Amino acid sequence: MPQTQHAERHFRASQAVRDIVIGMADGLTVPFALAAGLSGAVVSSHIITTAGLAEIAAGSIAMGLGGYLAARGDAEHYDRELQREQQEVQTVPDEEAAEIVEVFKAYGISPEQCAPVVAALCKDRDSWVRFMMRFELGLEQPEPRRATQSAVTIACAYIAGGLIPIAPYFIVSGVTEALPYSIAVTLSALAVFGYVKGGYTGTAPLRSAIQTLLIGGTAAAAAFILARAIS
Amino acid sequence: MPQTQHAERHFRASQAVRDIVIGMADGLTVPFALAAGLSGAVVSSHIITTAGLAEIAAGSIAMGLGGYLAARGDAEHYDRELQREQQEVQTVPDEEAAEIVEVFKAYGISPEQCAPVVAALCKDRDSWVRFMMRFELGLEQPEPRRATQSAVTIACAYIAGGLIPIAPYFIVSGVTEALPYSIAVTLSALAVFGYVKGGYTGTAPLRSAIQTLLIGGTAAAAAFILARAIS
Repeated sequence: MPQTQHAERHFRASQAVRDIVIGMADGLTVPFALAAGLSGAVVSSHIITTAGLAEIAAGSIAMGLGGYLAARGDAEHYDRELQREQQEVQTVPDEEAAEIVEVFKAYGISPEQCAPVVAALCKDRDSWVRFMMRFELGLEQPEPRRATQSAVTIACAYIAGGLIPIAPYFIVSGVTEALPYSIAVTLSALAVFGYVKGGYTGTAPLRSAIQTLLIGGTAAAAAFILARAIS
Repeated sequence: MPQTQHAERHFRASQAVRDIVIGMADGLTVPFALAAGLSGAVVSSHIITTAGLAEIAAGSIAMGLGGYLAARGDAEHYDRELQREQQEVQTVPDEEAAEIVEVFKAYGISPEQCAPVVAALCKDRDSWVRFMMRFELGLEQPEPRRATQSAVTIACAYIAGGLIPIAPYFIVSGVTEALPYSIAVTLSALAVFGYVKGGYTGTAPLRSAIQTLLIGGTAAAAAFILARAIS
């Protein structure tokens, strides 16, 4: 079944890319915006690096564990629906057979045309249930190690992204002096990240770079203006 | 086609719930952990509320726009694959017909048994393409307004969640005095959120409440310890 394998490989790759994108997009943006926002309100680099590292720790753990639970939730949802389908195939086989006919009807296929397929599925319960899971409910079986992989990928991407905007506050002395460097390295990193991301997700790289820059810039500007306004 | 409608309604509801969960889980956790972490390092409530609000602004915008781009990316991915399938159905119809047979083969259905279905699909290009999109590639047509809805839902959930842990630092004077209140209201909110979330996602509510509490607690503890260590 080369098609199914192809589709699943595709699905898997885009999941990993998506996890990196989720983690790094927020990792680059939120600590940067927080540091920029705070630099409008406080004068000590130490407070900014402390807040920045605290944010990276909190953000990476919260997002990583959030990703873990989301993937676990998907897996549990799949298992519950699987059990329900297995039960229905046993207890109300006629209704389930009628549901196969309904699935095909949506594609202009008559009950007569799909009768041999229905008959074949009804003879093999395992295939029947798999068919219903994918074609009636649109659910794919999640990979067993998906949740852990997702958590680690998101958290690492967040940390990698988050250290970039904070680094200048460690290196350059003085908040006002460090801020332009933080802006420069972060915007550069956002542009590179957006460009590379575009290559993976299929969006035109340049457009992806500009989109990503705009997100980071908007989030940072909003945080900066808010922090200035209340300080 | 009641089944298809059912499946899509299900899909849509879980997307909205997922967006709220994504936004609120991080909104409750990250600003809380940041404030708790900073309260181990700084003594001014004003800096903590400034950092907290800056984080909420940055986080809600970054996550909301991130959700917007993710949904847009899904829609663009769908459109690209749709165009490819439409082209393939026109240019290499025999290969595409063979791919339908392959899809069925994975469910133990012989080429003879699915022949009438293949013949019916080959006569109706529109249904054929829709069939390949869903059954070969496992892709569902995204809703047109999904990206905007997703962005607004995530951002609002983040703001609603984020204001809870920061509120005590506005009301109670003194960082050390406000911290226990922030911990109390946030852990309560996490538990309620986890409990309600469990009802929507199908996880046992009590287990969901404990999981959510653990995430918030772990993220906050890590941020707190880190901020103390470097201050």
